[in-house]
Amino acid sequence: MDIGIIGSSTVAQTVGGKLLDLGHTVTISSRDTSQGKDRGAMGKLPSADEWVAAQRADGAAAAAGSFAAAAAAGELVINATAGAGSLEALELAGASNLRGKILIDLSNPLDFSRGMPPSLLVCNTDSLGEQIQAALPETRVVKTLNTVGANVMIDPAGLGEPTTVFVAGNDAEAKAWVTRHVLREWFGWEHVLDLGDISAARGTEMYLPIWLRMWSATGAGALNIRLVTA
Amino acid sequence: MDIGIIGSSTVAQTVGGKLLDLGHTVTISSRDTSQGKDRGAMGKLPSADEWVAAQRADGAAAAAGSFAAAAAAGELVINATAGAGSLEALELAGASNLRGKILIDLSNPLDFSRGMPPSLLVCNTDSLGEQIQAALPETRVVKTLNTVGANVMIDPAGLGEPTTVFVAGNDAEAKAWVTRHVLREWFGWEHVLDLGDISAARGTEMYLPIWLRMWSATGAGALNIRLVTA
Repeated sequence: MDIGIIGSSTVAQTVGGKLLDLGHTVTISSRDTSQGKDRGAMGKLPSADEWVAAQRADGAAAAAGSFAAAAAAGELVINATAGAGSLEALELAGASNLRGKILIDLSNPLDFSRGMPPSLLVCNTDSLGEQIQAALPETRVVKTLNTVGANVMIDPAGLGEPTTVFVAGNDAEAKAWVTRHVLREWFGWEHVLDLGDISAARGTEMYLPIWLRMWSATGAGALNIRLVTA
Repeated sequence: MDIGIIGSSTVAQTVGGKLLDLGHTVTISSRDTSQGKDRGAMGKLPSADEWVAAQRADGAAAAAGSFAAAAAAGELVINATAGAGSLEALELAGASNLRGKILIDLSNPLDFSRGMPPSLLVCNTDSLGEQIQAALPETRVVKTLNTVGANVMIDPAGLGEPTTVFVAGNDAEAKAWVTRHVLREWFGWEHVLDLGDISAARGTEMYLPIWLRMWSATGAGALNIRLVTA
């Protein structure tokens, strides 16, 4: 399948690498595909071009381009930009390139401008997922996987026991397709809970502050929650 | 132990009943102890006076009084009011009656005035837990148990497998005392995670929207999350 990824972040490269391993064709994207993001103490992230060159050396069908090129190339499109830049990146991607397509939204509206831990740029009575759906009314936005780190997104089994992931969106067919194919078959998620329409993105995005605190308190490299009911 | 409970809500009566079962003396409180709250389709909640009469008939050391009376009576005090009324109730309880004491804060700043699901009255860069600690600087506020329903607070084993509860607060000794005695010994919590100072209440309060969505999506009578790390 031809998959376009908006962004070239750690999340974009991790998810893109998994999709290439599964045999898909992947186009990642950036304003400037030659520039790798500086992550401070974690070192420089490979640029989109460097990442593509490494993937191609392994025989994978990878490409890099503009946000619009990735959106146009993808039968399925994934938003893997940082939340603060998502709306602008998707505007550059172009509503016409995304029309009728499923857009999987992995983003979180984290605001690092006021120091650590980050706060949210939007919350409570609105969400980034809703803003993206409103900006792209003819695109079928499915919010999912934003409650876990990139390593857990593509390898939930790495946690050693089943945990829970959520989907939210206005299009039931799109949610069902993403749940069945992307989450269960491709990434191996067993427990997927449909939280309702796209306004449920408020819940999964407002979960970030406790996720960040749990991460800080445990020092774990990978973490997630398992929903337990009685 | 003499325990004062600010409030006479379902949470107050559920937690109060468990504490009485454990042999403690409990004073619940209300603006008017003769009036039971009307819960619509769920029927009328017993008034504080009715609840006390029923507990005394079972031989328990229960009393009802004003917020100030409960705060004065308690060696340990628990805020079990609805979040929208917590600051006013604690002002009526009186800073002098709470000075030096541990105040366990179970509340959530839910705003039902804009319809369902509720939004939050405060979030993101502040929290009700922080507002309560700021209003009562000489009281040791420990935010905990606000991420679960009343039935789970006092009976985590009822979920059939261990789940996680959180503590947040500025006083490490107070958090350790609440964790050891109230959470582990009295209520039976095995997994207690310290998320840090009282600002971590932002995380546990902002978790409410996803909790409400999980509750709605599953229809479960009791639910909680288990933190899984690798």
